[in-house]
Amino acid sequence: MRVMGIDPGLTRCGVGVVEGSPGKAGRLVAVDVIRTDSKAELPERLRALDAGLSAFLEEHEPEQVAVERVFSQHNLASVIPTAQASGVAVLAGAKRGLPTATYTPSEAKAAVCGSGTADKRQVTTMVTRILRLDAPPKPADAADALALAICHLWRGALKNRLARQARSPR
Amino acid sequence: MRVMGIDPGLTRCGVGVVEGSPGKAGRLVAVDVIRTDSKAELPERLRALDAGLSAFLEEHEPEQVAVERVFSQHNLASVIPTAQASGVAVLAGAKRGLPTATYTPSEAKAAVCGSGTADKRQVTTMVTRILRLDAPPKPADAADALALAICHLWRGALKNRLARQARSPR
Repeated sequence: MRVMGIDPGLTRCGVGVVEGSPGKAGRLVAVDVIRTDSKAELPERLRALDAGLSAFLEEHEPEQVAVERVFSQHNLASVIPTAQASGVAVLAGAKRGLPTATYTPSEAKAAVCGSGTADKRQVTTMVTRILRLDAPPKPADAADALALAICHLWRGALKNRLARQARSPR
Repeated sequence: MRVMGIDPGLTRCGVGVVEGSPGKAGRLVAVDVIRTDSKAELPERLRALDAGLSAFLEEHEPEQVAVERVFSQHNLASVIPTAQASGVAVLAGAKRGLPTATYTPSEAKAAVCGSGTADKRQVTTMVTRILRLDAPPKPADAADALALAICHLWRGALKNRLARQARSPR
């Protein structure tokens, strides 16, 4: 299964696609950061973000999408543009009919590092290790997007297995 | 000129189109509220909101769009879904190439009531009067969307006139 992880942001939006299957290490397909001009007006920035996400989705054809959930505990000054970017990111997956899940930053960290309070460096280290990369993913910000994709591959597989067990006769 | 006003919200999103020209009272073209199912997941809700906005834009063909700006002074519990809905609303106008402006609630209130601290009842009364409606716009929530459209018609016209004056030789 191919999963696209999105770490939403208006100035920098991390995107990454990982291919994997339940219980196996994934393979990096692509990773990037979509930037929008901080001097441009909001409508132009959201349009540019949407265009960047669309191009990435069309090029790498993920089957599912995982987006970081936005919380009010985020930096208050940036929570509104981040939430606006996340709305555009979630819509990008949903309007293409792709199953689109959201995960908290803690869930993504716990998935790759075993702890929801792991720092950025640990996340980058573990993403590099899990995907067996020769060097940490660049740009660094995109490691979070890859962690979200890995989180979804692993948790999604677990959820599916539990759902199957619940349905099967005991 | 036809302007579409959007009062963004995930559960209820007010939309209204007003036709007018600088210095004249406008004419109501259409008004509605787009609702999404609060029991549905975020991706499905944003997809439904986008579909509702797209249908309204296609049916009423506004030339410009005015969206209420989201502030962190908004109710903190609702600021994130409201910001996500506003991201989708601003994108809906921008990706169609329509000039899309944002106004604070105070700016919209000041435009139609003469005061940025006017209450909801005053806004509904003045929107009804300005558009010479036989009855207050229904649903009531949509009055804010019409106030935004009127605000943009009037302020946009003023901005354009000032820009022309600035360009013309003295």
